[in-house]
Amino acid sequence: MTDSALLATLRSEARDAPESGIVEVFNYGRGRPGLIPLWVGEGDLPTPGFISEAANRSLADGETFYTYQRGVPELREALARYHMRTFGRAFSPDRFFATIGGMGAIQIAVRMAAGAGDEVIVPTPAWPNLAASVGVGGARPREVAMRFGNAGWTLDLDELFAAAGPRTKALFLNSPCNPTGWTATREELQAILAFARKRGLWIIADEVYHRFSYGAPRSPSFYDVAEDDDRIFYVNTFSKNWAMTGWRIGWLSSPPALGQVIENLVQYSSSGVAAFMQRAATVALDEGEAFIAEQLARARAGRDIVCRGLGATGRVRFSEPAGVDGERDTRKLALRLVDEANVGLAPGASFGEAGKGFLRLCYLRSPDQVEEATARLARWLGR
Amino acid sequence: MTDSALLATLRSEARDAPESGIVEVFNYGRGRPGLIPLWVGEGDLPTPGFISEAANRSLADGETFYTYQRGVPELREALARYHMRTFGRAFSPDRFFATIGGMGAIQIAVRMAAGAGDEVIVPTPAWPNLAASVGVGGARPREVAMRFGNAGWTLDLDELFAAAGPRTKALFLNSPCNPTGWTATREELQAILAFARKRGLWIIADEVYHRFSYGAPRSPSFYDVAEDDDRIFYVNTFSKNWAMTGWRIGWLSSPPALGQVIENLVQYSSSGVAAFMQRAATVALDEGEAFIAEQLARARAGRDIVCRGLGATGRVRFSEPAGVDGERDTRKLALRLVDEANVGLAPGASFGEAGKGFLRLCYLRSPDQVEEATARLARWLGR
Repeated sequence: MTDSALLATLRSEARDAPESGIVEVFNYGRGRPGLIPLWVGEGDLPTPGFISEAANRSLADGETFYTYQRGVPELREALARYHMRTFGRAFSPDRFFATIGGMGAIQIAVRMAAGAGDEVIVPTPAWPNLAASVGVGGARPREVAMRFGNAGWTLDLDELFAAAGPRTKALFLNSPCNPTGWTATREELQAILAFARKRGLWIIADEVYHRFSYGAPRSPSFYDVAEDDDRIFYVNTFSKNWAMTGWRIGWLSSPPALGQVIENLVQYSSSGVAAFMQRAATVALDEGEAFIAEQLARARAGRDIVCRGLGATGRVRFSEPAGVDGERDTRKLALRLVDEANVGLAPGASFGEAGKGFLRLCYLRSPDQVEEATARLARWLGR
Repeated sequence: MTDSALLATLRSEARDAPESGIVEVFNYGRGRPGLIPLWVGEGDLPTPGFISEAANRSLADGETFYTYQRGVPELREALARYHMRTFGRAFSPDRFFATIGGMGAIQIAVRMAAGAGDEVIVPTPAWPNLAASVGVGGARPREVAMRFGNAGWTLDLDELFAAAGPRTKALFLNSPCNPTGWTATREELQAILAFARKRGLWIIADEVYHRFSYGAPRSPSFYDVAEDDDRIFYVNTFSKNWAMTGWRIGWLSSPPALGQVIENLVQYSSSGVAAFMQRAATVALDEGEAFIAEQLARARAGRDIVCRGLGATGRVRFSEPAGVDGERDTRKLALRLVDEANVGLAPGASFGEAGKGFLRLCYLRSPDQVEEATARLARWLGR
C-alpha cells in the first residue's frame, strides 16, 4: 500500500492536525553545534535536585504500581495549599487532578467542553497546541486576533464576544499570554466571566505564567473573580515554575462535581500519572518558592538584555516579545536564523494569523547565553 | 450552579464515559487491612532496580527538558532490536513511537482510525478501556461476544466478520486475551487480516501479553503474517513484562509513513514521554530478559495454585481464568468478596456483555499470597 493511500484511510481530524510550527524549527535546528535555542518555552536550568531526589526516593520505595487516577491525595492537598498561598483563600483538594502536563489537562478540558460540530474561541497569537487540540477533538477553533500597537498587545472584548455563535461551547483565555505577554486586568476577567455565564460557555483558563509577573507577585486570575462552581477549567503545569518541562506533569482544576467524569477521562487516555512523579511535584509545590524566585530573576535579567540589545539595532519593535520589521514569512525567517545566526526562535505564524510577522524568543537562560544570542541577532540584523 | 446542571453542560461522550468496573472495585477495597488485591492486571513485584536506576541516572544527568515527540532514538532502536529478537526478522526503528502507556497508544490509534459516526468492532470479554476509548473518541464500539464452552473460550470468525457494516472502520484484536486467555492461532490471524484487507479496515492489535505464553516462547502475532505497510496499529506497554504498570510508558507500532501524523497527535495529547522514563525503558528492553523469565515462572506457579485450589471446591469452572457458578451479578459479587473474603477480583461485567457471570483474577504474585487468596476464596465458596 502506498504512503498516500495509507494516509487517505485516516480520520481527517487526525491526518490534518497541523505540524507544530515550533517543533518544525526545533527539529530543523536540533543538534547544530553552538546553536542557542530560544524557540520553545523552556529555560536552560534542569529540574532542581531536591525535586528529582523525591522521585528517586519514591522509585527506591517501590512506588511503581498503578495509582489514583485523580492524583495521589498528598499532591492534591499540596495543590490546595499552593493555591491558598498564591490566591489568599481556601481551596478544596477535590478540585485538583494530576494530568500528563498542561497539555493533558487541556485535552481533558476540551473533551468535556467541545466536540464534533462545536466551536471554541481562541484569541491569537496563542500557543498553537490550543487550537490544534480543539481540532483533533473534532471541534473548530475560531481565532480572534489581538492587536499590536503603541500600547503593546490588546484584546478587544467586543470582538471576542462577537465571535461567539450558536455553536460556540467554550473560550480559551491565556493570561499572561504566551507568546505576547498580554495580561488581562481584573476588570477584563470579570467582563469575560460575565459574558461566559450569560451565554453558558466554558472558559478554559491557561494561567500557566501567572507567577512570571514583573510588577506584582502574580497576575490577575479568574480565581480572583469566579465562584468555585463556575464553568471554568484551569489548566496548569509544573513545567515552567519548577523547570520540569520534560516530566510531563500538570494539573487540571475544575468544579469538584466533575470528579468522576475527569477520573474516567484520565483512565481512558493516560490511565494516570506515575506516583513517583507526583511525589516530585508535591515537593516542588511545598519547597519550591525559592527556586521560582530565582527563575523570575533570571527571566527579568534575560528580558532586559534582549530589550537593550535588540532595541539598539533600531530594527526591532516589541512590547514584551519581539516583532521584526521587513520580514513577512517568519517561518522561513526562523529557519534562516538557525542557519545564518545560529539562534533558534519560534515563528509567529505558528501562533495564529495574528502572529504572522512576529517571532517568539524565550529569554529564560543564563545571562551569558542571552547576551550572546542577542549579539548574534543584532549582528544579523545589522548586516 | 448545581452539580447536575454542571454535568448537563458537558459533551455526552465525555459525561457518559462509563466508570471502569475494575477501578470501582479497586476504589471500594483500597486500603483494607490484609486484603489481597488480584483485581488489576498487575503483579506484586516493583520495577527491578536496574530499570529504575537508569531513570535516576538520566535525572541526575539533567535530562529534564522537552524531548523527541516520537521517542528518543535510542529507545526506538532498542524496540527494533527487541522485536527482531522476538519475531526473528528485521524491523525499522521508524515504526516505533513512545507513548503514555499502552493506553496512550490505544488513544492515538483510535483517533487515527475512527471518530464521530464510525464503528469499531470489539470482541468481548475485553479490557473495558478498549470500548471506552472508542466511545470517548465519539465512535461506537460494537461488541462481538466470544463463547465459553468445553474447549475454553472461542471467537467465531463468521460472527466477527458479520459485525462489520458500512460504518465499521477498525477492529480490535487482543490476543492473548485479557481477561479470558484466549489466543488466536496463526491461521485465525491470517483470516482476520485477509478480511480487514478486503474491507479496508484498520486492525488495532493488542498483543501485550504475547510473552506470557505457557507452551511456547511467545504466542502467534500479526507480525508473523502481515506486511510492514498493512493497516495495523500494534499497541503495547512496558507495564506487564517489566513490572512498570505505574510508569505509564508504552509504544505504538505502525507503518512508518504515519510518523508525522503520530508525532502531531503526541504533541497535542501528552507532548511526549519523559526522556528519563525512556532511558529506563531502553534498559528494560536490552537487559530485561531474565526478569521476564522470572515473571513468567511466577505467573505459571500462581496459575497452578489457583487452578488446584479452586478446582477442588467443585464450584468453579475455568479454562485459564475463573467463572463462578450460581452468581449472576458479578459486580456485586466482587464488592462482596472484598467485604467477606478480603480478596479483590475484577467483575466480568466490566469486560462486556460476554463477561457477565465471570470474574477475573490476576495470579501474578508471590506463591504465599496466591495460596492465601485461593484458600480464602475456597473457604468463602464452601460456606
